[in-house]
Amino acid sequence: MSLSNARKMMEEALALARQAAQSGEVPVGAIVVRDGQIIGRGANRPLESHDPTAHAEIIALRQAAAAMGNDRLTGCELWVTLEPCAMCAGAIAHARIARLYYGADDPKGGAVTHGPRLFDQPTVHHRPEIYAGIAADEAAALLKAFFAERR
Amino acid sequence: MSLSNARKMMEEALALARQAAQSGEVPVGAIVVRDGQIIGRGANRPLESHDPTAHAEIIALRQAAAAMGNDRLTGCELWVTLEPCAMCAGAIAHARIARLYYGADDPKGGAVTHGPRLFDQPTVHHRPEIYAGIAADEAAALLKAFFAERR
Repeated sequence: MSLSNARKMMEEALALARQAAQSGEVPVGAIVVRDGQIIGRGANRPLESHDPTAHAEIIALRQAAAAMGNDRLTGCELWVTLEPCAMCAGAIAHARIARLYYGADDPKGGAVTHGPRLFDQPTVHHRPEIYAGIAADEAAALLKAFFAERR
Repeated sequence: MSLSNARKMMEEALALARQAAQSGEVPVGAIVVRDGQIIGRGANRPLESHDPTAHAEIIALRQAAAAMGNDRLTGCELWVTLEPCAMCAGAIAHARIARLYYGADDPKGGAVTHGPRLFDQPTVHHRPEIYAGIAADEAAALLKAFFAERR
């Protein structure tokens, strides 16, 4: 994938993160892509939806799986603005996502390159290819501005 | 909680696991309990619902949170027939479940007393009280029978 294509994909996820912020939710956005087409979109919204599982990744994965009529998203990519947490990393493994692209690191809540590092665990059922740091500055700036406003 | 009460609660989760098996899904069942009342029920159904996140725990947590109108289930209990995976353990932490009761151990896919042991990670946001091995023999027998039939 070219750098401009990667930028374009992450821009879609960033737009969803901005949507989340406008609704008062922690700004994280995610898309699921198959053969270059977006088949799932998620903007983080646990508060609004009264759903502790409503992270951007989970919403995007559920939408994509519904669109495909299959609980496995073999060959698909997940693009997300923030390093996934344990819940979302587990869902990514269950969905058999082929490639995970994420933006900002999350040393406190991340479970991919921080904390439990789920995909490096010997018991993990599936490990996607992982690409970190894509448009990380924008993703981190959105989060920083969001939390600064709330202090 | 008395042993007979614990038995009664896990029997509700086992009934949901049997429902899952009847639908051709891996037999796992879960309930969320608040002040002795069941406010969420889940029977594992990723295949039928085309949803990689549709584990028993996730379904029960989402239902309970919708019933409460809150993404946090502070003070609530989760009862599940099998040791939760990383996705479900993460969701349990997000939901701030107070007490986790589970049946059979899952050395291959479990993330509570096996694998990443998520609640023992220094970065975990919330750790419930954990009670393992409740009606474990029945839960394990259901799983064993299910997989034996499919071989």
